[in-house]
Amino acid sequence: MKLFEDKISSAASRVRIALALKGLGVERETIGILGADAINRTPEYLHVNPQGLVPALLTDEGVLLTQSLAIIEYLDERYREPPLLPEKLEDRAFARAVALAIAADIHPLLPPRVTARLGTIPGAGPQEIADWSRHWIRVGLTAVEELLARRQTGRYAAGDAPSMADICLFPQAVNAERAGLALDQWPRIAAVVAGLRAIPAFAENGPAPRT
Amino acid sequence: MKLFEDKISSAASRVRIALALKGLGVERETIGILGADAINRTPEYLHVNPQGLVPALLTDEGVLLTQSLAIIEYLDERYREPPLLPEKLEDRAFARAVALAIAADIHPLLPPRVTARLGTIPGAGPQEIADWSRHWIRVGLTAVEELLARRQTGRYAAGDAPSMADICLFPQAVNAERAGLALDQWPRIAAVVAGLRAIPAFAENGPAPRT
Repeated sequence: MKLFEDKISSAASRVRIALALKGLGVERETIGILGADAINRTPEYLHVNPQGLVPALLTDEGVLLTQSLAIIEYLDERYREPPLLPEKLEDRAFARAVALAIAADIHPLLPPRVTARLGTIPGAGPQEIADWSRHWIRVGLTAVEELLARRQTGRYAAGDAPSMADICLFPQAVNAERAGLALDQWPRIAAVVAGLRAIPAFAENGPAPRT
Repeated sequence: MKLFEDKISSAASRVRIALALKGLGVERETIGILGADAINRTPEYLHVNPQGLVPALLTDEGVLLTQSLAIIEYLDERYREPPLLPEKLEDRAFARAVALAIAADIHPLLPPRVTARLGTIPGAGPQEIADWSRHWIRVGLTAVEELLARRQTGRYAAGDAPSMADICLFPQAVNAERAGLALDQWPRIAAVVAGLRAIPAFAENGPAPRT
């Protein structure tokens, strides 16, 4: 397998964490997601992935998979151990809901291509863009904290083993801290993330800072 | 089961379509998502769902499920027929990738709470907000068209049976047309959507127009 990624992408970070949890080694290629048109689409990469986004995973059979959560579900269905979703249906739904509360309600409002577009609106300077990002992280992590308060049953977000929920939470929490938001305003998230930092698959595969 | 929804929400539309495809009748309650703070959170609904978002599904066991894709995965795991994902792993990954290319790359940039926030930026008037929405629909559906061009194998988005991919595509396509974007610029999407319009589970459960 070959992973196309960017070190700063939290979506790519999710797939790196999932691969590490499964103990799967893969070839890696870094694709820059900053630069012209907010995505540095080389012709070579566009040939592989017309969308130009990361992450993308090329399987051993030569099938290109895109979208971090679709890739993680694929890895979980193909390589069963350790499972990245709990066993009970309601618990699986909860883990996926936490994952999506981040991957669909927070992260899509923050990537370079979105903030770059925001910056084309007259009146949207660096301060407004930073406020925009912090607003959605704050609203979104508050929602995640409420989800955890309602149903968290173990030491991680969705049970006593790391799941897809933690895989999405960890990179977002790292980026929240970089955006100047202290995690202790969300005590359950802070406790889960502290636990995840002790797991090498997470600690070694977070998103790199934008330089 | 009880579905909390809003007729204009395309995320709620996805769950309605999934329920209809599975032939599951549920109690329904409409929650307004327009209005003050872009979400009309009544104390009664906040008691049920602290996030205040729709859709949410209350199971017969009294568990509240949130996030449309998590709900649809739950329905598909609990009520197996007809399946909402193809059988082969790579095909499942493709169906989920199309679903997420809409649910995580297009839709999150468009709901009322996001455009309302955009409107607080000086210089972002109704025209800029409309341009913003059309931009992300155009970029996103172009990406979906490219995905389909690479791997579409049947008459629907991910095979010869409607799947989670179609469930996400249909409401987004309906809203694209309402935003003034003709689907024929994406011939594969236009053909798929034309096929879906002939299926009552889709035709009867699309998102209502914002009035």
